[in-house]
Amino acid sequence: MAGGITSPELVAAVSNAGGLGMIGAGYMTPDQVRFQIKEVQRFTDKPFGVNLFVPGKYEVDEEKLQNAKSLLKPILEDLGVENDVVLPNIEEDILTFHEQLNILMEENVPICSFTFGLPSTEIVAKLKDKSLVLIGTATTVSEAIINQRAGMDVVVVQGSEAGGHRGSFQFDNNHSLIGLMSLIPQVSDHVDIPIIAAGGIMDARGLIAAKCLGAAGVQMGTAFLVCEESGANKIHKDAIINAAEEQMVLTNAFSGKLARGVKNGFIEKMNPHGDALPDYPLQNELTKAIRKKSAVMKNPDYMSLWAGQSPRLAKTFKASDLIIKTVKEAEEILFMLKN
Amino acid sequence: MAGGITSPELVAAVSNAGGLGMIGAGYMTPDQVRFQIKEVQRFTDKPFGVNLFVPGKYEVDEEKLQNAKSLLKPILEDLGVENDVVLPNIEEDILTFHEQLNILMEENVPICSFTFGLPSTEIVAKLKDKSLVLIGTATTVSEAIINQRAGMDVVVVQGSEAGGHRGSFQFDNNHSLIGLMSLIPQVSDHVDIPIIAAGGIMDARGLIAAKCLGAAGVQMGTAFLVCEESGANKIHKDAIINAAEEQMVLTNAFSGKLARGVKNGFIEKMNPHGDALPDYPLQNELTKAIRKKSAVMKNPDYMSLWAGQSPRLAKTFKASDLIIKTVKEAEEILFMLKN
Repeated sequence: MAGGITSPELVAAVSNAGGLGMIGAGYMTPDQVRFQIKEVQRFTDKPFGVNLFVPGKYEVDEEKLQNAKSLLKPILEDLGVENDVVLPNIEEDILTFHEQLNILMEENVPICSFTFGLPSTEIVAKLKDKSLVLIGTATTVSEAIINQRAGMDVVVVQGSEAGGHRGSFQFDNNHSLIGLMSLIPQVSDHVDIPIIAAGGIMDARGLIAAKCLGAAGVQMGTAFLVCEESGANKIHKDAIINAAEEQMVLTNAFSGKLARGVKNGFIEKMNPHGDALPDYPLQNELTKAIRKKSAVMKNPDYMSLWAGQSPRLAKTFKASDLIIKTVKEAEEILFMLKN
Repeated sequence: MAGGITSPELVAAVSNAGGLGMIGAGYMTPDQVRFQIKEVQRFTDKPFGVNLFVPGKYEVDEEKLQNAKSLLKPILEDLGVENDVVLPNIEEDILTFHEQLNILMEENVPICSFTFGLPSTEIVAKLKDKSLVLIGTATTVSEAIINQRAGMDVVVVQGSEAGGHRGSFQFDNNHSLIGLMSLIPQVSDHVDIPIIAAGGIMDARGLIAAKCLGAAGVQMGTAFLVCEESGANKIHKDAIINAAEEQMVLTNAFSGKLARGVKNGFIEKMNPHGDALPDYPLQNELTKAIRKKSAVMKNPDYMSLWAGQSPRLAKTFKASDLIIKTVKEAEEILFMLKN
């Protein structure tokens, strides 16, 4: 999950309750990353981690860019916002990524996870030298094998059920919408590193099921997003709580990269033009002002309401209560299975 | 699975080994249904069931029909076949369905499952009067609730992982691609009838995982399709055995209804035109000669190679060995969870 949602209070609450809290630092400036780490450290002395986005190459397709601008123009006008788009710069993104990594090492963060690709051999060696535990992301067996070869200690296996952005990096996004029931055992048969299952898991049933399939543990996103301590906008939380599973649709219209969230007016308008939109992170920049203003106006129709396919399981617990409840119910399931 | 694949030998082997063998009778004439039932009864005295397709309304869109014909023309020419298309007739389909049901009752088949919709109240009452156990299919929570209200005794919950045709009947196909990790617990919270999980499950890991999520049992399709006794074409079996999970794609190009199978030349050619193709069962009739000739020519490129998202788990066991192995490994998983 991106920063803002993973508030220091949420990250610390998860770690304090026996989970592994993660700061979603993908979009953060180096200063923000340092601040967030220090805040979490104020609230917990337990281990926690930081998730980073690995910068990838992209090309500026002028035709797609102009197409997106003209599609977004009426929405911008409707919301009364200007879009001062600063086109992203790959060299700057790489520089930021290196600065983020340096801060992790300086602040002795023990765990770092990666999305949208893998760090270079040099970076992996440097982080391992500092004893960081490295976690990669995979959406297919072959991406999981690439993770293992790249030196990841653990791999998050993201099923098609997952909310937010697809972590696919090897193929086109559409090739890797594999449900966890299929994905976990197939990955498990092909890698030796521990697997963390991600996607649609929100309670003990998913936790134990994932373990049966071959996972060592699970990553829960939406389940914590709706928690009390999460920094997610209330509009976002409410949209999930009130959604049914078939409303959790895929779209590339917010960012240029495929992601899952609650269907709204923006997705309905833009999805038919999906193939004609620029790639991530260009489209992401183009929609930034729209998403921001929509949130300020408390209008869910233009916000990216990321969430997985299990909205009916969403409950507004405190994060610690969610973990305690999950552990307790996991014991009950095991007891039921034994008898 | 459609008939041909579910050979009497396969159905009986599954029932003899402690599973519940099912005849896929969707496309069978009444005479064929009766013959298949009698054949299975020769090989087993254990219970088995019959799966039927519930006929649904469809409209003949002349533009789409002509479009499909011109798209298929070069393929027909290439394969050297003529397409004497007999357009399906809804009244005839309904008549056949009633005849199929009568045969089930006459032959004392104890279990009947339905795909593509639900039978009428009158039919349900009649079948229940004869003590048949009725099994429906659902791809969303709301379809599962409709199944329960319609008097189904059991509901098959089909995840996005599943091979072959989507069983969706309430909404457009694309709305109901929910992974089992999400779908089972959400359905389980909303219906009281037993749930059978279907989609990507091919071994004990999936069986126990599905039970943890709230299922009473599982339905395995692809796992039995590749078995020795299955009547599936060897080309079909080999295509699955040699596939990776990301090759298992969705297409409406073979039948007009969304279905999952191994990506091949036909799918690559036709999927870009998916929206312009006629609905099921029209498209199904249009491609019949192509699929048939392709199989005769042992050319996988124009065959519908239906299978779920777990091809890497496919093994060419005997059906009885698959069941024995699954039961044994399920016990090992339970032992592992206990300790």
